[in-house]
Amino acid sequence: MQDRDLVLGIDIGGTKTSCGFVDLTGSIFNATSMPTQAKESVDNFISRLNHQIEKIRADLPFSHCLCGIGIGAPNAHHYRGTIENAVNLNWGESVDLVSLIKRHYNLPVVITNDANAAAIGEMLFGNARGMKHFLVITLGTGLGCGIITDSRLLYGASGFAGELGHTVVDPDGRQCGCGKRGCLETYVSAAGLRRTAAALLAERRDPSPLRATSYYKMTAKQIFNLAVEGDPLALEAFDRTARILGMKLADAAAHLSPEAIFLAGGLASAGDLLLAPTRRYMNDFMFSAYRGTVNLLPSGLQTGVSAILGAAALIWHELKQL
Amino acid sequence: MQDRDLVLGIDIGGTKTSCGFVDLTGSIFNATSMPTQAKESVDNFISRLNHQIEKIRADLPFSHCLCGIGIGAPNAHHYRGTIENAVNLNWGESVDLVSLIKRHYNLPVVITNDANAAAIGEMLFGNARGMKHFLVITLGTGLGCGIITDSRLLYGASGFAGELGHTVVDPDGRQCGCGKRGCLETYVSAAGLRRTAAALLAERRDPSPLRATSYYKMTAKQIFNLAVEGDPLALEAFDRTARILGMKLADAAAHLSPEAIFLAGGLASAGDLLLAPTRRYMNDFMFSAYRGTVNLLPSGLQTGVSAILGAAALIWHELKQL
Repeated sequence: MQDRDLVLGIDIGGTKTSCGFVDLTGSIFNATSMPTQAKESVDNFISRLNHQIEKIRADLPFSHCLCGIGIGAPNAHHYRGTIENAVNLNWGESVDLVSLIKRHYNLPVVITNDANAAAIGEMLFGNARGMKHFLVITLGTGLGCGIITDSRLLYGASGFAGELGHTVVDPDGRQCGCGKRGCLETYVSAAGLRRTAAALLAERRDPSPLRATSYYKMTAKQIFNLAVEGDPLALEAFDRTARILGMKLADAAAHLSPEAIFLAGGLASAGDLLLAPTRRYMNDFMFSAYRGTVNLLPSGLQTGVSAILGAAALIWHELKQL
Repeated sequence: MQDRDLVLGIDIGGTKTSCGFVDLTGSIFNATSMPTQAKESVDNFISRLNHQIEKIRADLPFSHCLCGIGIGAPNAHHYRGTIENAVNLNWGESVDLVSLIKRHYNLPVVITNDANAAAIGEMLFGNARGMKHFLVITLGTGLGCGIITDSRLLYGASGFAGELGHTVVDPDGRQCGCGKRGCLETYVSAAGLRRTAAALLAERRDPSPLRATSYYKMTAKQIFNLAVEGDPLALEAFDRTARILGMKLADAAAHLSPEAIFLAGGLASAGDLLLAPTRRYMNDFMFSAYRGTVNLLPSGLQTGVSAILGAAALIWHELKQL
C-alpha cells in the first residue's frame, strides 16, 4: 500500500501549542497540545515540541510521507520565517523559528500569523472553498484578520497586512494596548465586549446580573449567556459590537471588494447573536455598488482544530504551488 | 529606421476626453482633447473620438507601430470592458466600450477606472517606479483610489475594489451622493473642502473673505489661495481635511501595508499645505508596527497629461505580461 501524504500543522498560542497531522482533504490525525510556557527559552520549547511531534508521529496507524510543516503563530513574519516581539513569550525580539524547526526536519517549513493561517484554512478546508477574494476575521482576545485577494494571502510591504484590529473607530476613544486610542479591537473582541458591557453599566439603568460581577470576573461567555436569556444590557452590548463591526467590515469591503467575510474565533461562536446584526449593519454601511453582494458567514472550520487546519493548509497551499 | 512602438492612452472624463500616443519610456506625442458631451449617444462619441485619433495619428512625425489602446474612465469595469451607470453621460446602464473601440482598431484594448489608471501610471512612469505595494489617492470632485499589491492592480470580486471615498468617517455625518452619510469623500475632496469651509463659517467667528462668497461660488482653489495668504478659516479647513485624510490613510495602511501612498488630482496640487499635515496625522493614527515606514508622497506624473499617461501605462503593463 502506498504511503499516505501528510503535513504537520502547528499552532503556537500564548498559553497552548497544538499540533497534528493533516492530509490533503483536511482530515486530522493524532492532534495533541502542550502548554506554551511564558518563561521558557525557545530552545527548550522546541525540544519539548519535537518530542511531542515524534510521539504522535510514532502513533500514526499507517505508513506515511511527511511533506512539510506549517506553523501559525501570533506576530509571525512570513517572509523572514520569524516570530517577532511575542509579548507573551520569553523569546526576545526575533526568533528564527523556521530555521530552528528545520534543524530537526529537513522539509519545507512555512510560518504565518494565526489569522492568515485561518484564512488559508478557510480557503482549502472551510467555507471559502472556490472563493478568490475574501477576509477572515478572528475574534478572540483581540481582532485579527487574514486577507485573500486573487487566491493569495495579502502580506503587503511589511509582511503584516490585515491589521484591521488597529483601524480607527473613534480617535478619542478607548485606550488600546498598541498605544493608540479607539482601535477596532478595543470594541470588537472578547475584551472589547466586556468593555462595552462596563460602559453600559454606567450609561443605562436596567438591572442586570452584570452589575453583580466585578470587571475582572466578567467574561464574553457570561455576557453571551445573559444575552441568550434576554438580558437587555447584554443584548445591547452585542448590538453595539455588531454595529461597529458591521461599519468597519463595510470599510474593509470598500478597500478590497471581497466575495465574503468570515467570522472565526471564540467570540464568533456567539453565532447569530453577533452574525445577524453585524450582517444588517454591514449592509447599511456598504457602498451601494457592493451592497448585498458581500456575504457575512461563519467559519467552516471546526472550533478546537481550526488552528491546526489553518497551519496545515498554509503548507499544503505552498506545496501545491511548487 | 525601425518603427517606433506606441500605445494610445485615452482618458474619458465627464466634461473632457483626452488622448495621446505614449512610448514605453512615458514620452507623450500629439496629446489632444475634445469635449465629452453629456447628451451625445455613445456611437456619436466614438465616431468623433476616432476622427480625433486618426487626425493626431496622421500628424505623428515618425513611422510607428500602434501596439494597443488603454482607456481610463469613471465607472469603468476592467473585467467586462464596460462603462457602467456613468451618471454624467447619456450612455445608459452599460456600454461595452472595449468592443466599440475594437471595431475600428484590431488591437489589444483595456479599460479601467481613472484612479486605477493613475496607480498603474505612477508605477510605470511616476514616483512609484520599483514599488510593489502602494496606493494612489485621486482628489478631485470626489476621492478615488487605485491599489497596487504585489505589483498588480487590486480589482476584487466586483472589479470595483478601492472605493475608499465611500468608507465611513462619521455614520451620522454629511450626506453623500451615494446615498450614505459621512463618506470620506464628503470631507476629503474639492467638494468636501468647500463643505468644511462652510461648516467653519458657522462654527468660528474669524472674519474671512470666504464669508463674502456664496457657497455656489466658493472653490477649492479660492480656499487654497486664502490659506496661502494665512486666512485662519481657510487654514483650518485644510487642517481638518488633512486630519480626516490622515486617519483614513492609516486605516488603509492597516488593511494593505503599502510602501507608500500617493496623492494625485486637483486638490493634491495644494502641495505641502495638504501633504505635510496629512503625513503628520497619518503617522499619529498609524499602527505602531508600520509607523514611519509608509511614505506619503506627491504623484510624479505631470498634471494635465497624467490621465493619458495612466491609460497608456495600463495597456503597456498588460502588453508586457503577454
